[in-house]
Amino acid sequence: MRILGIDPGLQTTGFGVIEAEGHALAYVASGTIRTTHLPRGDLPARVRVLFEGVQEVVQRYEPACAALEIVFVNVNPQATLLLGQARGACLSALVTRDLAVAEYTALQMKKAIAGHGKAAKAQVQEMVKRLLKLPGLPGPDAADALGLAITHANAARTLQSLQERGAERSRASGMYRAGRTG
Amino acid sequence: MRILGIDPGLQTTGFGVIEAEGHALAYVASGTIRTTHLPRGDLPARVRVLFEGVQEVVQRYEPACAALEIVFVNVNPQATLLLGQARGACLSALVTRDLAVAEYTALQMKKAIAGHGKAAKAQVQEMVKRLLKLPGLPGPDAADALGLAITHANAARTLQSLQERGAERSRASGMYRAGRTG
Repeated sequence: MRILGIDPGLQTTGFGVIEAEGHALAYVASGTIRTTHLPRGDLPARVRVLFEGVQEVVQRYEPACAALEIVFVNVNPQATLLLGQARGACLSALVTRDLAVAEYTALQMKKAIAGHGKAAKAQVQEMVKRLLKLPGLPGPDAADALGLAITHANAARTLQSLQERGAERSRASGMYRAGRTG
Repeated sequence: MRILGIDPGLQTTGFGVIEAEGHALAYVASGTIRTTHLPRGDLPARVRVLFEGVQEVVQRYEPACAALEIVFVNVNPQATLLLGQARGACLSALVTRDLAVAEYTALQMKKAIAGHGKAAKAQVQEMVKRLLKLPGLPGPDAADALGLAITHANAARTLQSLQERGAERSRASGMYRAGRTG
């Protein structure tokens, strides 16, 4: 299953694509979509770059699903509003490409990648490098995005094994009942 | 010039389309895009409905430009973040259809429509009804959206007349200079 992770931000949005088969994870691509070349006040232009950037990534790498970070509520309401709009643009770009979008907090991602929710940026970068056997450290935004994709791969695997065990139990109890009535 | 006004909200987004020629304003259409039928927690689905709803309005009425409300920063950060994402979805839908987007606060809209920035919802509805010669009161969200479109029509007309006066002055001083040199 190919998974796209997105760490949304108005200035820099990180993306990371991985391929997950059972416990095996493989790196496909990662990078950032930047709006820093645009005037700070031109929100329509910045939102457009984010939306089109995410759609381009989806078109190029054709992921089966996406994992999007649930952004922090900033102490500054104006910054929160801007971050919300950046996330809204990324989310729009994903859902209009018919991608199922799972949402994880940074805390959930850090726990899944580094084992605890207070891991520093550098620890996430180091762990992502190890888990995906990368030759060098990914940038912080790309690392967060790859971390989200890995978090989703783990969650999807757990869910699938629970479902399979549930199905086995149903079959087993079904046979038992069949035996009793037969 | 056909103008689309959008009053973004996660539950209800209002839209209003008008035709503006000089001082003449004509109503074209208005309504709301609602996400209230969807589970509150399913943000991806709600964002998709908003994005696709705005794009449908653009496709149907083919406006030349759009006026989008600059949303209020809510006292509740979580609500601010959600509103930001709704606005990000609307803005994405407009800019990816190549529409120039002007942004106005509710205060600017109320001043333009009702003469003062503290006008109540009902006053905006009443004034929009009068200005567009509507048979009945528009709903509050549609009225705000129509109000934004009218605000933009006024602003665009003012800008144009200033530019024309500027051009006349340039021509006049050009002729004067020509007279002196001739």
